[in-house]
Amino acid sequence: MNARPDTADIELDIEGAADYLNMSQSKIKGLLDRKILLQVWDGGWSRDQSQRFFRFDKSVSKIEHGSVLYQRNGSFELIRGFPKIQRAMLLGPALESHFSTIKTVAVEEKMNGYNVRVADIGGRIAAFTRGGLICPYSTDRAQNLLKHDFFDQHPDLVLYGEMTGPDNPYVPKNVYNIESLDFFVFDIRHKDSGKPYLLHERRKLAEEYGLNQVTFFGEFSLDDAQDEIASIIRKLGKVQHEGVVIKDPQMILDPVKYTCSQSNCADLQHAFKFYNDVGRDYFFSRVVREGFQSVEWNENETELQKRCLQLGESILRPMIESIKQVKDGTRIADDVQIRVKDLSIISTYQEYLRRLSVDAVFSEPESIGDEYIVKIKKLNQSTNDKTESMCKGELW
Amino acid sequence: MNARPDTADIELDIEGAADYLNMSQSKIKGLLDRKILLQVWDGGWSRDQSQRFFRFDKSVSKIEHGSVLYQRNGSFELIRGFPKIQRAMLLGPALESHFSTIKTVAVEEKMNGYNVRVADIGGRIAAFTRGGLICPYSTDRAQNLLKHDFFDQHPDLVLYGEMTGPDNPYVPKNVYNIESLDFFVFDIRHKDSGKPYLLHERRKLAEEYGLNQVTFFGEFSLDDAQDEIASIIRKLGKVQHEGVVIKDPQMILDPVKYTCSQSNCADLQHAFKFYNDVGRDYFFSRVVREGFQSVEWNENETELQKRCLQLGESILRPMIESIKQVKDGTRIADDVQIRVKDLSIISTYQEYLRRLSVDAVFSEPESIGDEYIVKIKKLNQSTNDKTESMCKGELW
Repeated sequence: MNARPDTADIELDIEGAADYLNMSQSKIKGLLDRKILLQVWDGGWSRDQSQRFFRFDKSVSKIEHGSVLYQRNGSFELIRGFPKIQRAMLLGPALESHFSTIKTVAVEEKMNGYNVRVADIGGRIAAFTRGGLICPYSTDRAQNLLKHDFFDQHPDLVLYGEMTGPDNPYVPKNVYNIESLDFFVFDIRHKDSGKPYLLHERRKLAEEYGLNQVTFFGEFSLDDAQDEIASIIRKLGKVQHEGVVIKDPQMILDPVKYTCSQSNCADLQHAFKFYNDVGRDYFFSRVVREGFQSVEWNENETELQKRCLQLGESILRPMIESIKQVKDGTRIADDVQIRVKDLSIISTYQEYLRRLSVDAVFSEPESIGDEYIVKIKKLNQSTNDKTESMCKGELW
Repeated sequence: MNARPDTADIELDIEGAADYLNMSQSKIKGLLDRKILLQVWDGGWSRDQSQRFFRFDKSVSKIEHGSVLYQRNGSFELIRGFPKIQRAMLLGPALESHFSTIKTVAVEEKMNGYNVRVADIGGRIAAFTRGGLICPYSTDRAQNLLKHDFFDQHPDLVLYGEMTGPDNPYVPKNVYNIESLDFFVFDIRHKDSGKPYLLHERRKLAEEYGLNQVTFFGEFSLDDAQDEIASIIRKLGKVQHEGVVIKDPQMILDPVKYTCSQSNCADLQHAFKFYNDVGRDYFFSRVVREGFQSVEWNENETELQKRCLQLGESILRPMIESIKQVKDGTRIADDVQIRVKDLSIISTYQEYLRRLSVDAVFSEPESIGDEYIVKIKKLNQSTNDKTESMCKGELW
């Protein structure tokens, strides 16, 4: 997702924005000129086209990358981007060093899906991607999934959560026993300031409104945390879940993530299917995590050998499968699907992917209950082309 | 080796060089300004400092990267860089497509060491690295290894070969049954034009002068080549050798290389010991080769599983070893050694590495026969630092 489905039609009240963001007007103009502050293509979200959104394509001063700026009833509002969570490579030392000033840490599940912020703007729900784009599919799903009473009473709050399940056009997962796609809250923050709810208050608030939440595994003393988390991670790994986020219940210290080996390997399996389309850093980071986890878990020869085999298989099997497929004349593709109630979402989503330069082929909608499933083949051109040329005898 | 041990003291006869290279003077000036044409630090090779060498840091027009330009008795001479040899990912299709216009291909061993060009300049031998630097150690070794009668009779020829063996500060290898370091010719070319000797004539010429040569496995019809080479590759793999170069005996078509799985895995083993110092592309390319070879060799489940395990072990075991070592307070280093007759080479070589920004610790010379061995610890700062910081609990 490197391209930008943004519109060219910029109409930002520069004076007002400068005032609201406490920046100079020339700074705002510079951000617009350098395409760091960009108008968002909303895919018809704003039906009368009166509502315009602007996103930060980089972090600027203290405003996170992906933050979204807009005007409502004459006032500016800002939906803050979701801060990147750093990773523990060695859990024990990381816990000790990072959380040394607090007594307990809370552990929640890190689900495998995609990160979405859901907010209400003038009585209408919008779902923003990590980068601050309005994803028409996620927006449609959020509008269907979330009852409006939460936003009726808290129009100034933003739900940060994971969209996950099989009807997921980015990271489809069947491991959560979800029928289609659900939204799991892991953070609630105020508009403008981005100030988060304290962990337990956030969970209470979400519960009151019947919102899905990521699993809470408990709050542990720093002394117990390493063993407890290691045991949670092993259990999560067995059911192919991704990992955990370790949080300061007071939400003062930054959270830290830690993932299961099985999740690294699943990532590698998917990435090596499309070996020439995925960034080299993606492979590397996942491989390195395996090394650190093996050291920390003090693995014996049998466990180590199992890990080595698993790693090698996660890399080679999907790549070999892709090469064979292309050799036999089949184009490899990432098969995903979406589920919609309103057929008009399909063409809007198609246009959204087109603007992101994603090469995707949509099948005809198949009716399922009162909804439709659309299968999408995302073509990975570079892997197809490279493999094809190798099969023709071209040299590397 | 990203830095450049070049001198700042440029004294090139621009007019003469332009004339010799058939370029405009302003082009030559531009190459000097943009540091594409650079004076080479010769480490005292030219004792009276009258001889100056200039190297091409990029290919320019038809002059290969690494080509070396100098003046001798008022005339310019050029030692052409060694052209990059492309790789077959799928041997069968590559042979068919690349060599379709000829009837037979010759197969020689691709040895695992480092690529050196040896030439005689005014009665004195110099050894140039792939990039066109004068390596003081390689030069000293070449002067010791090569009798002068070859260059006495062929001062206009350049020997292209592999320096290999255990006393090798770049790629030490014990697999060739070499006591210290030897030089194996794989190409002989004319100065200036870079015109190569035909394969069989080159082998004959080298034999006449008693020069070491890379192994010649035979000349095969295109019909037989794939099976013959696959069988050679399997045998070479078993003894941990690297692979083969497949050549047009007439030296008209470009040669093609193909390597053993064991060599890929050995590369990975070495690279993952220094996981944070080695480029991500290095890992990636070696992993991808494994996938293609497995498909081409039509491996069954047992063979595939063996390959997966081998790949996983080549990646994880050295990395885990490094992490454990750093965790226990030992700095990891690449342990290599050189062997010299003349003690003065040591400090020159030390200066050479310093200019290349290689962080290396030299031990005291140990006498062995009429020579000295110097152990060198090349420190891989980035891997040491990264691993140390992870062990201290820093986040990734």
